[in-house]
Amino acid sequence: MLFNGISNLTLERMIDVWPGSPWTIAETLPADVSPFVLIGVLLSLITVYVTSKLGGEISKRLDLPPVLGELVGGVIVGVSALHLLIFPENGAVVTDSLIAQALQWMGSLDTESATRVFESQSEVISVLAELGVIVLLFEIGLESDLRELGKVGAQAAVVAVVGVAAPFLLGTVGLVSIFHTPVIPAIFAGAALTATSIGITSKVLSELGHLKSTEGQIIVGAAVIDDVLGIIVLAVVASLAKTGEVDLLNVVYLIVSASAFLIGAILLGKFFNTGFISIADKLQTRGALLIPAFTFALVMACLASVIHLEAILGAIAAGIVLDETDKRNELDQRVIPIADILVPIYFVTVGAKADLGVLNPKVAENREGLIIAAFLIVVAIVGKVVTGWAVFGKTEVNRLAIGVGMIPRGEVGLVFAGIGSASGVLDRPLEAAIIVMVILTTFLAPPLLQVALKDADGVEIDASEPLPVVE
Amino acid sequence: MLFNGISNLTLERMIDVWPGSPWTIAETLPADVSPFVLIGVLLSLITVYVTSKLGGEISKRLDLPPVLGELVGGVIVGVSALHLLIFPENGAVVTDSLIAQALQWMGSLDTESATRVFESQSEVISVLAELGVIVLLFEIGLESDLRELGKVGAQAAVVAVVGVAAPFLLGTVGLVSIFHTPVIPAIFAGAALTATSIGITSKVLSELGHLKSTEGQIIVGAAVIDDVLGIIVLAVVASLAKTGEVDLLNVVYLIVSASAFLIGAILLGKFFNTGFISIADKLQTRGALLIPAFTFALVMACLASVIHLEAILGAIAAGIVLDETDKRNELDQRVIPIADILVPIYFVTVGAKADLGVLNPKVAENREGLIIAAFLIVVAIVGKVVTGWAVFGKTEVNRLAIGVGMIPRGEVGLVFAGIGSASGVLDRPLEAAIIVMVILTTFLAPPLLQVALKDADGVEIDASEPLPVVE
Repeated sequence: MLFNGISNLTLERMIDVWPGSPWTIAETLPADVSPFVLIGVLLSLITVYVTSKLGGEISKRLDLPPVLGELVGGVIVGVSALHLLIFPENGAVVTDSLIAQALQWMGSLDTESATRVFESQSEVISVLAELGVIVLLFEIGLESDLRELGKVGAQAAVVAVVGVAAPFLLGTVGLVSIFHTPVIPAIFAGAALTATSIGITSKVLSELGHLKSTEGQIIVGAAVIDDVLGIIVLAVVASLAKTGEVDLLNVVYLIVSASAFLIGAILLGKFFNTGFISIADKLQTRGALLIPAFTFALVMACLASVIHLEAILGAIAAGIVLDETDKRNELDQRVIPIADILVPIYFVTVGAKADLGVLNPKVAENREGLIIAAFLIVVAIVGKVVTGWAVFGKTEVNRLAIGVGMIPRGEVGLVFAGIGSASGVLDRPLEAAIIVMVILTTFLAPPLLQVALKDADGVEIDASEPLPVVE
Repeated sequence: MLFNGISNLTLERMIDVWPGSPWTIAETLPADVSPFVLIGVLLSLITVYVTSKLGGEISKRLDLPPVLGELVGGVIVGVSALHLLIFPENGAVVTDSLIAQALQWMGSLDTESATRVFESQSEVISVLAELGVIVLLFEIGLESDLRELGKVGAQAAVVAVVGVAAPFLLGTVGLVSIFHTPVIPAIFAGAALTATSIGITSKVLSELGHLKSTEGQIIVGAAVIDDVLGIIVLAVVASLAKTGEVDLLNVVYLIVSASAFLIGAILLGKFFNTGFISIADKLQTRGALLIPAFTFALVMACLASVIHLEAILGAIAAGIVLDETDKRNELDQRVIPIADILVPIYFVTVGAKADLGVLNPKVAENREGLIIAAFLIVVAIVGKVVTGWAVFGKTEVNRLAIGVGMIPRGEVGLVFAGIGSASGVLDRPLEAAIIVMVILTTFLAPPLLQVALKDADGVEIDASEPLPVVE
């Protein structure tokens, strides 16, 4: 059948509404559950938006960064509490998800069909969340300035290197000496401490109107470099865990490809301006500026993914490059509504996927993990806060804010827990400890960063609507 | 593992880049293909945007509606030619899709994993296309005016009823008398002729700047009513095909629920203004106006789906309701970029899913279908064009344009072909004939509508960027 997306929707529905012997025709067709997938996606998106607005607004009234409310809201609707937004990669099945159960009831679906609906709608929401963080980083890139980043590039590099080295050494040595953890698992945990989540930090900076400040640009630059370093550190520890040796060839490959990608993007930026604008100016149909820019962001994200970097690195590079063009402001304004609808999916999903069950001290096997976690959290905070004092040559800079900005581990730290657990290197308490450390640093960073920035300012800048739209 | 969307991406990738024994760790994990799904979605979206811009711009230079270029571009990248955008519901497998094959090669995936990647990325693109047509109809609703629609409501209803009755009767009687088709299949084919695609028509009207004209509002109103009538006709013929009888209870249910929904939405619109604005005004975080409005559109789309109407009916109703608010223009402007990135996915996908193989006269079994198709196309055009002359009390109205605006069958007509084929009522030539009729009316309508509107205007209004953004 052609044009199938919409038509099956009606097709199934017509069969469905047919009282007497519903589904008899459907059973002769290959079971098509797409109408229920659409309804599931719509219900999930409605949940995301209601959650993000409620959470964000409450957070704002409490004088906290809205993104914290979105994360906490996500926890409330997710696997830890209300079970509205549930993802199968947590080991959840269709009966764990209230939305999937509603769809199963609505369509009288058998378990197999219901499972397909549940998995498909979760997959769609997961991909939308990934598109959300891609658009977020594209927007952050658009709000960054290549010259400003260049000016603080050396400082950002130092912050990133210290922010990788300090928590890694403190964590690894501390685990071995205090907790008598074997060396390889200790190195794994140390590696997990090196991560910084660009998404969380840059969103908070943007919300507080500090993205374009010297501190903001140092943090964003350092977080980008940290992300690349994190990919390299992960390659090293993963090969250590597996063969007991470091695969130098792979490390060299990653360093070369990451450097080539980022330097290539910057050089491209210098020559891109005229070419891009002349294409956009020639287009006469709707989205003449937005679609080429958005496509460029997707191409860069795809390219970064394909060469084994992060999609978000490609997206921020695309944003920084396009920030050099003359149409910057116009483009900014067109990207904002897209970010408004896609970015909340990312943050609410991050919260929804966080299983706070590991924080429950009543579960015996969590207790040992919680003690290690307490240590890891101290290292995670101290190891990043000191990076602020690694900044040289900028006497007037808010060193505390820079250090605090590097604290959130977000999704990046969990990659280490995941790979360590899968390869059998991490035992259950240490894995749980890493997860607790990641959750707490992620949730603590937004309010801490706000306090650190306010200390210096005295006043808070409201950047909730950065570019007013003229009616 | 927590926060899984992004983390698995890196996780798999890190394992992947590890030379020597790639995938060894991955094989101990539940096979997670999500990084390849993301890359597949990114590649598909890049294909969509490049296609829609190339197609749209070429169409525009040829002085045709851009949407025609998007549809034709979709055909070129889809199942009929380049095989870049392929959907499994056409019976396609992973080896039919160039993107899926590239992913399989990139990740050295086995057939099972590659199939899961192919199906997941197709599902995501299909849902994004459905969100695209939801946003399109929401935007069309925002550009419509309840008072204007009310003024032409009676005319629209007459146009819709004539536009359902005329092609149904002409088609059914013609098939029985000329082609000696049995009655039930002839009724099915007649029913397929009654559909009108709101999406295609309203997009062309919007592109030509005629959406707010009397003709435009009559067409949109009639297409909405036609959609509801189509759902009822489908219920009738489906139950005829199955039991030989009409299920009156179901017909009554559909009429009552559709009327209640549309009247409810209109009444809501009269009381919604103050409530909605006061909520939006109280919100202090980003997307204060957009997110509540977008959520409302999703709620209405979801509600319409759940009560067995079309999601797009809910979306257009939401748009019409919100058009009554004072923040109409601001909202319009924020929805435009979202429509710019989502709507092309819909049109390119419609083109990509259209299998022009049924038009090939070299295939023997197509020939009989093509002869019937020629008859159906004449009926499809004549049966809708006459509706313009059913408009009463508006002497100055462009009757030809109204009739032509009702021509495109789009996805709606295919529902009939699909259900008829699945229930065994339609033989292969008649099914192929209906598909050919749907494809040709869909592709012919945009240029015909442009000609019909130009006849009256003399000049064409350029509405490619309806609301200029102030920098």
